[in-house]
Amino acid sequence: MGIRTPFAERFSLTYPILLAPMGGIAGGRLAAAVSNAGGLGLVGGGYGDLEWLEAELALAREGTRRPWGVGVITWHAGIEAVKLALRFRPDVFFLSFGDPRPFAALIKDAGCALICQVQDVDAAQQAKAAGADVIVAQGTEAGGHGAVRAALPLVPSVADAVAPTPVLAAGGISEGRGLAAALMLGAQGAVVGTRFYACQESLGHPSAKRRIVGADGGDTVRTHMFDVVRGYAWPAPFTGRALRNRFTARWAGRDDELARSLDEERPRYQAAAAAGDFETAVVWAGEGVDLIADVPSAAEIVQRIGREAERRLGMASGLIV
Amino acid sequence: MGIRTPFAERFSLTYPILLAPMGGIAGGRLAAAVSNAGGLGLVGGGYGDLEWLEAELALAREGTRRPWGVGVITWHAGIEAVKLALRFRPDVFFLSFGDPRPFAALIKDAGCALICQVQDVDAAQQAKAAGADVIVAQGTEAGGHGAVRAALPLVPSVADAVAPTPVLAAGGISEGRGLAAALMLGAQGAVVGTRFYACQESLGHPSAKRRIVGADGGDTVRTHMFDVVRGYAWPAPFTGRALRNRFTARWAGRDDELARSLDEERPRYQAAAAAGDFETAVVWAGEGVDLIADVPSAAEIVQRIGREAERRLGMASGLIV
Repeated sequence: MGIRTPFAERFSLTYPILLAPMGGIAGGRLAAAVSNAGGLGLVGGGYGDLEWLEAELALAREGTRRPWGVGVITWHAGIEAVKLALRFRPDVFFLSFGDPRPFAALIKDAGCALICQVQDVDAAQQAKAAGADVIVAQGTEAGGHGAVRAALPLVPSVADAVAPTPVLAAGGISEGRGLAAALMLGAQGAVVGTRFYACQESLGHPSAKRRIVGADGGDTVRTHMFDVVRGYAWPAPFTGRALRNRFTARWAGRDDELARSLDEERPRYQAAAAAGDFETAVVWAGEGVDLIADVPSAAEIVQRIGREAERRLGMASGLIV
Repeated sequence: MGIRTPFAERFSLTYPILLAPMGGIAGGRLAAAVSNAGGLGLVGGGYGDLEWLEAELALAREGTRRPWGVGVITWHAGIEAVKLALRFRPDVFFLSFGDPRPFAALIKDAGCALICQVQDVDAAQQAKAAGADVIVAQGTEAGGHGAVRAALPLVPSVADAVAPTPVLAAGGISEGRGLAAALMLGAQGAVVGTRFYACQESLGHPSAKRRIVGADGGDTVRTHMFDVVRGYAWPAPFTGRALRNRFTARWAGRDDELARSLDEERPRYQAAAAAGDFETAVVWAGEGVDLIADVPSAAEIVQRIGREAERRLGMASGLIV
């Protein structure tokens, strides 16, 4: 079985499911596991730490013979990170959060497909103009960084704006119903993040995975505060969606005060993060946490999402009188 | 042709499309037109103005022989409004924004189906306990009042939480792709608001309809300010999504200051509203405005949404290998 879209065919996928390149969470072992299961696994290069990237890219490269890829945070990652990643010959390069133009030619000249993730229709048109082979329309329900528009109306708007460039949906998709819905919206596949955070191969802390399993969709919030305390100067319009904890309760609406208290708060935060204390440290998570109840293998997740989507799609024509 | 779900069958609908009971916009003529076209038309009773309700309910009652209904803002509408509406023998009663229990027995004892709209999973469970026959999961992308959770992850979560009670999806659905996606998410139909605001039979001001046609999804914002200036004390967690205009730009982040300036600002706002000046007055609208490009008849909208959804659903099984 499998689900066929032009995007899935291009990369020989059984199911058009992309592992979101979650920085520091989606390592090479997870990326390879998703690709081996028939999805498309991406290493999450995040802010572009070269040492981490090199080790994880090597794991992905060695871990799979199927197409795989890498993603970075566009506004922060340097050209060295992009060049390093390209040396491992990924099949796709995923740029999100910022202007893709400084890296687009380098990536495409290396024979690598360019996937640009966007949060609104204007950015989608800019990504297309920059040469994106695939555009991801990311809704506000997504975990981690993102912006304000919701996926259900955004995906068809982006699909119309950039046709015939293929579009994928991201945001709040953690099971087969979401993938089937994304395909009905005109997407050729779905990007899945939080669901893979809580899987065996993810580099997430075991306590963070347990928190995702225990959370519901109302337990997440979009905020600047984890960027403020960590010292990342994210540009507008991006904020990050995370699980609520004591830290978000304490600093709610007080980003400015937090910024003035960094001498004290940053060391405290860093100590908490190192200790796995997620009442202070961040667990990025999307609104799809409602639908996450266990910590299975990545392959199990790909199969579950794919088969449930198949089942829903198979019933669809039966709804027509 | 048509789309069949248990909800559609119960009310003999050609397409499982509900007209959102937009207060003051969804009058009796629009409700009847939607029902006559094979959807389910609802009069938008809003805050419960008895004179307006009586006139519009009469128009709906006279305008269609098919099932139709009425909706009110639960926390504000009085028992008199509910009793008045029931005298017109609607087939469905739509309660949104507040505790349905004060009205549930009255509505159900009248032989009228109770539809409760909710914005999170807890409220869905409360609505089920209150006797709701159908539950609407409304996403944050919806126009008008609502809350923070996005539809794509919320709809399946609500469907799981209240099964086997039927669930409908609301928020950002203005065409057939959205309806098809809603059905894949486990909903039995979709509630459509903004798309019907910009139709011929709607009671919206012609300039407001033109603004919806001209807007894109990034032009909307969730805000308290129109409630503050009009003097409606909406309870948490509800805000309203509206088109951005000079008023929203002027008062952004300054709800408290607006509340202190009402002696001057309320008369100014009321004059603007009376004059159809929508740089000051509110146009409630959802993120689906991207996909709205004209002001057709209600019947044309029902047909377009229904047929496009049929087309998408009909192609779905072809995606399976």
